[in-house]
Amino acid sequence: MNEQHSVPQGDRRGLLIILSSPSGAGKSTLAKRLREWDTSLRFSVSATTRKPREGEVDKKDYYFVSEDAFRTLVNDGEMLEHARVFGNYYGSPRAPVQSAIDHGRDVLFDVDWQGAQQISNSALKQHVLSIFILPPSITELRRRLVTRGQDDADTIAKRMEASWDEISHWDGYDYVLVNDDLAETEARLKSIITAERLRLSQQPNLVDHVRALQSEFEENT
Amino acid sequence: MNEQHSVPQGDRRGLLIILSSPSGAGKSTLAKRLREWDTSLRFSVSATTRKPREGEVDKKDYYFVSEDAFRTLVNDGEMLEHARVFGNYYGSPRAPVQSAIDHGRDVLFDVDWQGAQQISNSALKQHVLSIFILPPSITELRRRLVTRGQDDADTIAKRMEASWDEISHWDGYDYVLVNDDLAETEARLKSIITAERLRLSQQPNLVDHVRALQSEFEENT
Repeated sequence: MNEQHSVPQGDRRGLLIILSSPSGAGKSTLAKRLREWDTSLRFSVSATTRKPREGEVDKKDYYFVSEDAFRTLVNDGEMLEHARVFGNYYGSPRAPVQSAIDHGRDVLFDVDWQGAQQISNSALKQHVLSIFILPPSITELRRRLVTRGQDDADTIAKRMEASWDEISHWDGYDYVLVNDDLAETEARLKSIITAERLRLSQQPNLVDHVRALQSEFEENT
Repeated sequence: MNEQHSVPQGDRRGLLIILSSPSGAGKSTLAKRLREWDTSLRFSVSATTRKPREGEVDKKDYYFVSEDAFRTLVNDGEMLEHARVFGNYYGSPRAPVQSAIDHGRDVLFDVDWQGAQQISNSALKQHVLSIFILPPSITELRRRLVTRGQDDADTIAKRMEASWDEISHWDGYDYVLVNDDLAETEARLKSIITAERLRLSQQPNLVDHVRALQSEFEENT
């Protein structure tokens, strides 16, 4: 199915908003504040082949699917991105995202650079807004990981390696923010989302407004 | 000269901000408010082959040039856009705009759809931000022209024809705003400019920040 032919139901088409950053750069806090600002914002629900853990709810926490079903979705082009992690598959199904954006709702994606790249090249690429958040310094990044107190030195070293891998792909995004001031970064994110909603490609229904102007013009001349 | 090879001097590269709309849609008021918001915003100074009128200052109101000089600029690709109006040439010289954006200053362009199209296809297209402002209705557009009280009925009819010609090219812009509430449109314009300044392509100096992160990372591992 080509999204160009789907009909948006609301005033505008929704965006696929990709937020990527190394862990410790402030992404979770920023995503939380964005969702307080606009309560219609939702994270995309991933599909996975791993077994549900206690308390996890199908279709809410994940779409729990078999490996066969997952492969079929991938082969049918129904996954915006996917990856194999520790023997299990994870991915973002296209259909619920398509439905959301057709109803004028934006969808948030918390994915790494590889997921971001796949979504940015997917069937919905026209509606993707990708943002990378850089830390002000490596020292500050490490400080935030250490302060969290969840990890031992070895794990922190591994996280820092992963962080650097993520940072090194900073230039594959539409927008890049250095998070040296949380309030400022939050304001900037809101400006970016507000702006991108006003792009021509996000407002297919403006055609109707222009048609109305045309009728009015022709009636009066 | 390829702008890719010019070195930005400030924290970011400036934008070429194109504001187009039919007359009466509120563009002048909005441009004025944008310049109060950011006093570094300047309109591009046009070059023209027409004679200076009393009080007009060269290089401030216009670059007054000969027809030969104008043609040479066009042939050398030194005009971002140009047009002939009532026997005189008008155009936007590239060099001063290039200098401004290299110093991190944005330049406003008040051009019609033909000028917008030329600038959007110029050597500086990578840094162009084009915005079209639609009126809420034709009735409102006419009301604003009549209320101004500058024109007779015949002139207003001609202006309305020109307005429709302009409106009919609404879909060649990056962003489209319906100006049904001036304060809201002003806020949206500010969000768009704030956002576009944060695009990867506008922040060439971020490379230095990432290099500093890399050095820091390597020193600590």
